[in-house]
Amino acid sequence: MAEAKTLSGAGLRGQVAGQTALSTVGQAGAGLTYRGYDVRELAAHAVFEEVAYLLLYGELPNQAQLAAYQAKLRGLRRLPQVLKEVLERIPASAHPMDVMRTGASFLGVLEPEGGFEHQHEVTDRLLALFPAIMCYWYRFAHHGVRIETDSDQVGIAGHFLYLLHGKAPSDLHRQVMDVSLILYAEHEFNASTFTARVCASTLSDLYSCITAAIGALRGPLHGGANEAAMAMIETFATAEDATRGTLGMLERKEKIMGFGHAIYRDSDPRNEVIKHWAKKLSEDAGDSRFYAVSEAIDKVMWEQKKLFPNADFYHASAYHFMGIPTELFTPIFVCSRLTGWAAHVFEQRENNRIIRPSAEYIGVAERRFVPLEAR
Amino acid sequence: MAEAKTLSGAGLRGQVAGQTALSTVGQAGAGLTYRGYDVRELAAHAVFEEVAYLLLYGELPNQAQLAAYQAKLRGLRRLPQVLKEVLERIPASAHPMDVMRTGASFLGVLEPEGGFEHQHEVTDRLLALFPAIMCYWYRFAHHGVRIETDSDQVGIAGHFLYLLHGKAPSDLHRQVMDVSLILYAEHEFNASTFTARVCASTLSDLYSCITAAIGALRGPLHGGANEAAMAMIETFATAEDATRGTLGMLERKEKIMGFGHAIYRDSDPRNEVIKHWAKKLSEDAGDSRFYAVSEAIDKVMWEQKKLFPNADFYHASAYHFMGIPTELFTPIFVCSRLTGWAAHVFEQRENNRIIRPSAEYIGVAERRFVPLEAR
Repeated sequence: MAEAKTLSGAGLRGQVAGQTALSTVGQAGAGLTYRGYDVRELAAHAVFEEVAYLLLYGELPNQAQLAAYQAKLRGLRRLPQVLKEVLERIPASAHPMDVMRTGASFLGVLEPEGGFEHQHEVTDRLLALFPAIMCYWYRFAHHGVRIETDSDQVGIAGHFLYLLHGKAPSDLHRQVMDVSLILYAEHEFNASTFTARVCASTLSDLYSCITAAIGALRGPLHGGANEAAMAMIETFATAEDATRGTLGMLERKEKIMGFGHAIYRDSDPRNEVIKHWAKKLSEDAGDSRFYAVSEAIDKVMWEQKKLFPNADFYHASAYHFMGIPTELFTPIFVCSRLTGWAAHVFEQRENNRIIRPSAEYIGVAERRFVPLEAR
Repeated sequence: MAEAKTLSGAGLRGQVAGQTALSTVGQAGAGLTYRGYDVRELAAHAVFEEVAYLLLYGELPNQAQLAAYQAKLRGLRRLPQVLKEVLERIPASAHPMDVMRTGASFLGVLEPEGGFEHQHEVTDRLLALFPAIMCYWYRFAHHGVRIETDSDQVGIAGHFLYLLHGKAPSDLHRQVMDVSLILYAEHEFNASTFTARVCASTLSDLYSCITAAIGALRGPLHGGANEAAMAMIETFATAEDATRGTLGMLERKEKIMGFGHAIYRDSDPRNEVIKHWAKKLSEDAGDSRFYAVSEAIDKVMWEQKKLFPNADFYHASAYHFMGIPTELFTPIFVCSRLTGWAAHVFEQRENNRIIRPSAEYIGVAERRFVPLEAR
């Protein structure tokens, strides 16, 4: 019991809460693997649907399997009319993560899972529809436009950018969005994934698990670090400003988002990848501000605090260069992490026991009831 | 590590995952207390709003506080027009828990929490509205009626029965519904409450936590045992049928819902309470079937298996006598357990660390990427 007590309130840190075959995080100091593959190799050579297939079906697809999978997902892109009507009733001021959460939940009303034998179908449908849920609402609420949710883009990365901007993305933008979706796809027992698994452990349906996970990702301690990083980067006009400003923030002990990690000790393997692409996008855009500002902040954080940028930091400027509104950064995370969440739900269902821990009681001792009249 | 490994997949059973001042479950073998009060005393002497107040605000209210709290909740009963429009778009075939989940999520879009300083307001609003969300949808989908969601019933118990039946309930029915809402209000770190706490640990908003918890309660290993019990009870015409049938089910090793408990060893303290009221309702209704059938099943389970009925078993016939459709049993659980979920979220926020356990990796070893063309 003494040992159990030390765990209280400590967020189960370091406690093994289950098994997974999906990923390793920070083994041997720094790496991230999806089913044994280094995430850097996947990001360098694969498109997002290959990684989704790997996580959901267990192995990388061959050419025929990939083509069939992409074709299948393309066939699932049309939003049901009733869901459009619901999205049109959500005001522009809404939190985009509330839109994603509600969209997932409502789709579960319209197209229920039925039985676990349909879990892949439901996942594929959500994969195909999440970009549309996000963009249909966003474009309607902000621009009054009812977009078509189909496109001739082969993959989810290009499809999302098409829906958002109403035109085909450049090859570079499409490629970086693939990289980004790959980097965010899976990360072991993080809080949103663990939420999905606890929910799954009651043998609830997949929509409930995904809806729950979206709610957890919404929290500022989990998703949203790239949004916060962008908000900070935007306050600086030049690299010199950024250096001065970051030093000032450190002196005032203000929180700087996008650095360090709960599990990685030396570096976040996803950072080198997205940093590389953020630089390329910056050059492509002829930008002399956002990437330079980002690098200046990065330099100060390392020199002053020995803190490294995590996956989120250079995502901020990368997304910015692709014309993505800051408030949609976390919903993109949803479009990607859905694959990890769903794969974890499948795993939980395979070998389930309801997740029901105990609590240490710290309340008042047992006491006699006092009738209302005597209070 | 050896010890940590034994936990894997075991659902964190017996592991302390945090602290709570809200309840004790099964301490000294069998009891259930809410903030130190025996649930049996609360059920015998209090109305649901007293218990909600106790859980949410820390102490039982005095007469003035209770009257003010009930008046406040009464003032929050009107569904927003837009939410009605969303509920009207949910088909009659939908799972009622999907309706509750979506209703909670959509309300979070319309009336966001803003900051944690509004957590009590949001909870009160959900408390006031959940019966309306459930009944507005149910009556519209099944009977084509757009009900008024206000009533002159003082408390939530009577209000819910009024909305469902379109007329004031008898005193007996109102009282039993109060008892039922009290019995289901709180139960320590059960799976739905733990889901809410994991979600809360990212500092997400209250709607996300409640939406997630509803999703977890939806699972057949958690909520829904009273629905399953009712489905079984209905198959028997007489006590003799039930005895014979139950023996047959045991022989065929079929699962019989509503008996035994993960934590209580000797009895579920909530059972004696609801059984007492189920009997009263049976007499009041002049029924000679459902209660007798329930008792016969209970008797066989004890004699053959030494299994005691839990809170859910006699709830089935009790709800039946109050004219509640079986598919609404679990949504009523939501109306009640909301109080415990919210109180746990408040607690988590008071002393938070993000809940992020580890996993034991059981997947393939690290392997080299194979290009698509070579697969």
